[in-house]
Amino acid sequence: MTDLKPWKTLNSTVVLDRRPWMRVFSEDVQLPDGRVVQGYLRLETPDYAVIVPVDRENRVGLIRSYKRGVDAVDVQPPAGLIEPGEDPLLAAQRELLEETGCRAEHWLPLGAYILGGNFCGGHAHIFLATGCLQVAEPDSGDLEEQEVLWWPVERVRQRWRRGDFRQLGSVAALGLALAHLEDGHA
Amino acid sequence: MTDLKPWKTLNSTVVLDRRPWMRVFSEDVQLPDGRVVQGYLRLETPDYAVIVPVDRENRVGLIRSYKRGVDAVDVQPPAGLIEPGEDPLLAAQRELLEETGCRAEHWLPLGAYILGGNFCGGHAHIFLATGCLQVAEPDSGDLEEQEVLWWPVERVRQRWRRGDFRQLGSVAALGLALAHLEDGHA
Repeated sequence: MTDLKPWKTLNSTVVLDRRPWMRVFSEDVQLPDGRVVQGYLRLETPDYAVIVPVDRENRVGLIRSYKRGVDAVDVQPPAGLIEPGEDPLLAAQRELLEETGCRAEHWLPLGAYILGGNFCGGHAHIFLATGCLQVAEPDSGDLEEQEVLWWPVERVRQRWRRGDFRQLGSVAALGLALAHLEDGHA
Repeated sequence: MTDLKPWKTLNSTVVLDRRPWMRVFSEDVQLPDGRVVQGYLRLETPDYAVIVPVDRENRVGLIRSYKRGVDAVDVQPPAGLIEPGEDPLLAAQRELLEETGCRAEHWLPLGAYILGGNFCGGHAHIFLATGCLQVAEPDSGDLEEQEVLWWPVERVRQRWRRGDFRQLGSVAALGLALAHLEDGHA
């Protein structure tokens, strides 16, 4: 395979600082062939966890709420920001409990993925949580009004395939989780 | 299901304008219960197309390059920005030709998805392109040095499942494409 060299950062300037939500850097970078690109943008957003919870009746737990980014009501797996320094699995367990009132018997990490290859952004840490059991009432503390739905796996698969889930992170997480459930590796 | 109401935008201010790459808005919004949240951020980035190309030998075309956002060499499906006003399918066909030198016999749209439910960002338009045939040399015009790989579907599936693809858009696109290929609906 070709030897591909990284780009070199010549300098980096913060052009927007709205921590903890977002920081944007403008950077001059040097490509391996010597060319310099000025003002290449880099976005910093918090890492977050996406959880696909499955209960003992083989139903998938989903959250229905108005999402500002979609500007519509959307259905998605439970998800939430990881606090600085927090272990992604512990954040996922906390979010699942807050959003659905559930604890899971088994947690399978399905990888951590970056929002965009060009401009960066935080990582989405994806988990499959099986053997979910309700132990409390949901209490998300989120700004959004929300509703918990438990849908049969097959219904989730159909809706996923036909493009009903509106967010990239939902689609990535459900695809991986469904493949693992199908092969019985969960 | 619960009647979930949208949020109301009270005002919107541009806090970063780096078009055509990125614009950030700070907005005061009113929740359905009357509470006002000040400075809720909204990110505007260009729409892009992600293409999963499959040739007549059932191999998947992938691009290997150094990606700034990942800060590492990554393998991903061909992808590229959609020009303002450009039809997503035409953009996908253009990108596939530029990045791999291929034309496809059959194009299946697999949905359009938003980067993040909270802060928005552009849409990823995902396509499965089958019956790919090389008609030209790749000439991406991108900043990145890149290499085209053609991997058997099964190898792609294994790498996808074990988390080797580093970008959320790649994972979402490959998951959907693999499910369609598996069911022979492509």
